[in-house]
Amino acid sequence: MNYTLNSIPERAEKPRERGFTMAMDKGLSIREVEDFLEVAGDYVDIVKLGWATSYVTPNLKKKLDVYRAAGIPTYFGGTLFEAFIVRNQFDDYRRVLDKYEMTFAEVSDGSIEMPHEEKCEYITKLSEQVTVLSEVGSKDAEKIIPPYMWIKLMKAELEAGAWKVIGEAREGGNVGLFRSTGEVRSGLVEEILTQIPFEKILWEAPQKAQQVWFIKLLGANVNLGNIAPSEVIPLETIRLGLRGDTFDHFLDIEKPC
Amino acid sequence: MNYTLNSIPERAEKPRERGFTMAMDKGLSIREVEDFLEVAGDYVDIVKLGWATSYVTPNLKKKLDVYRAAGIPTYFGGTLFEAFIVRNQFDDYRRVLDKYEMTFAEVSDGSIEMPHEEKCEYITKLSEQVTVLSEVGSKDAEKIIPPYMWIKLMKAELEAGAWKVIGEAREGGNVGLFRSTGEVRSGLVEEILTQIPFEKILWEAPQKAQQVWFIKLLGANVNLGNIAPSEVIPLETIRLGLRGDTFDHFLDIEKPC
Amino acid sequence: MNYTLNSIPERAEKPRERGFTMAMDKGLSIREVEDFLEVAGDYVDIVKLGWATSYVTPNLKKKLDVYRAAGIPTYFGGTLFEAFIVRNQFDDYRRVLDKYEMTFAEVSDGSIEMPHEEKCEYITKLSEQVTVLSEVGSKDAEKIIPPYMWIKLMKAELEAGAWKVIGEAREGGNVGLFRSTGEVRSGLVEEILTQIPFEKILWEAPQKAQQVWFIKLLGANVNLGNIAPSEVIPLETIRLGLRGDTFDHFLDIEKPC
Repeated sequence: MNYTLNSIPERAEKPRERGFTMAMDKGLSIREVEDFLEVAGDYVDIVKLGWATSYVTPNLKKKLDVYRAAGIPTYFGGTLFEAFIVRNQFDDYRRVLDKYEMTFAEVSDGSIEMPHEEKCEYITKLSEQVTVLSEVGSKDAEKIIPPYMWIKLMKAELEAGAWKVIGEAREGGNVGLFRSTGEVRSGLVEEILTQIPFEKILWEAPQKAQQVWFIKLLGANVNLGNIAPSEVIPLETIRLGLRGDTFDHFLDIEKPC
Repeated sequence: MNYTLNSIPERAEKPRERGFTMAMDKGLSIREVEDFLEVAGDYVDIVKLGWATSYVTPNLKKKLDVYRAAGIPTYFGGTLFEAFIVRNQFDDYRRVLDKYEMTFAEVSDGSIEMPHEEKCEYITKLSEQVTVLSEVGSKDAEKIIPPYMWIKLMKAELEAGAWKVIGEAREGGNVGLFRSTGEVRSGLVEEILTQIPFEKILWEAPQKAQQVWFIKLLGANVNLGNIAPSEVIPLETIRLGLRGDTFDHFLDIEKPC
Repeated sequence: MNYTLNSIPERAEKPRERGFTMAMDKGLSIREVEDFLEVAGDYVDIVKLGWATSYVTPNLKKKLDVYRAAGIPTYFGGTLFEAFIVRNQFDDYRRVLDKYEMTFAEVSDGSIEMPHEEKCEYITKLSEQVTVLSEVGSKDAEKIIPPYMWIKLMKAELEAGAWKVIGEAREGGNVGLFRSTGEVRSGLVEEILTQIPFEKILWEAPQKAQQVWFIKLLGANVNLGNIAPSEVIPLETIRLGLRGDTFDHFLDIEKPC
């Protein structure tokens, strides 16, 4: 840190199982990745190349190298997995993961219908090749999954081999864990936490108010994802109680006034 | 493409008459332009220097050279044309176009009142010098132009020499083609399309939901404009059915589940 | 300017007491600062390193050097001052200002409760070391300060040694001067202006509609702050009547149509 402030919440250190930040790259250039990592490299734990943007970005191989050199793992968004599955190209997908030397992958069913057993089989198969993040929740705002079902799905996916389970929110933060207004489905989150270990969940929370909500509920070291690259530094200050939103939250010292 | 996915919609190739993407540069630095083109150069067809930002950006000549070297034509936003017209400086405007070796220009009346005959005369005159895009629709949210009038104006402007006509939306996507909420005036769009050829229209659609709406109605190769540079890659995935929003739309294959 | 337009409002020149623009850097990389200054260096007068982002950004010293070399002063957001105060570390704060050779500082009480006399003492003390901007208004949307009190606080802070007083809005533009919808508390602003000199106030106005409102009320040379780096060029065009929003506002010439 650039100077010393007392009574700052302790942050987990890399490699983090808790308190980690997943950022979303939806088409950064090589220099933009370098700039991002110069500033936020210490605070970002993993980068998702959003949905299937990796299909169209021309600098893919080189970009993955830049992240790799900085020690930041990457993975392709779950929509890419689904795009291969819906086309009966699962083996092609596995070859793409190999070709780009990916060490992580996401398994999701946000845009397709798939028996849950089948989803779990994909998790198990891919777990032999990479570390799997699996995602629960639909991208369709109309499809409301009740809390007991979230829990059942998450448990099964962790048992099938998922390293962590992701709560869906999209880039906008307006489905899955959230109402269309962006408001957190707080009862859902609290019920999930009665059954699934805190450190096993990665909450997608792209909006500031959502990040603040999770940090107030679960502390500095909650796992948060779908963070825009330019918001990783702001998020870190929210985790540390150094932005107005959580300023009071972490203070256990006597205030002088 | 970085890997092969089957059943991807076919995209028009450059130079595109259909399916082209107009991005808006509202003050990028030279390096930011280079970064933008590194990532999205294949997907952007023309760049508008938004409204009169070209008046104040200090790097204008050099920036235009960078776009030119990449084969991406540029033009000054229509508000600049209007700023010259309202000051009785049309001849100065023509000299500015020459000085900066512009090959495209926009004629609009979004902020001024002008007899339509006069607007058409400007289109005709400028057509002798550059390729003209003309824009229909007011920047004033209060001024609602009825559909039959949009059609009449668009027809006359194409006859006067406009290469394409633009449907106004502003940077925000909240006037002209759209209600103040950003919702598409869908009846207006559909009525326009009964009379004006699809490929002659460039729809300003800065918001994602607007882009999705047009792509669902008109397909991957609809002309869309006022796209932020960082949204050109995301837009391309929406065109290709590779983002949640249009994932189902282009699939004609049997889903395996 | 790149070309000549008649009847453009006159802008104050640097160093500006009026018409100045304060931009907010919430974690730019070195190159991003260079890019920002290449484009907007002539139009930005001072840069705030937002709230306590300076605590976590690894490139602080070097970044401050880049701004300094360009002749742009910088200061740490008021929340950093408050973070030191609430921890009884005021002397440490003064040492941080020295260590980083800061010539400006902000004194605020947006996130803490502090007797106003004490706030004024901090302003006086820091004024011996740096030029002080003091901020009035709470970051808490629930705390509504009535207009007469804004005036009383602002007067006292100017008397205590503040160079200018800032009207609070946060990055979002949804507290203090503004309602939670972003709408200006116009009666408040007008009442303040009956008692506090125009050039002594820096209005935080991050949203475009807010900037437009102030420029229409107070002219091209109103002091505006919390401007995103990428919005400094757009703001300059609004000041000059070269964007749709203020296009008509500054025209005193006869329109040709």
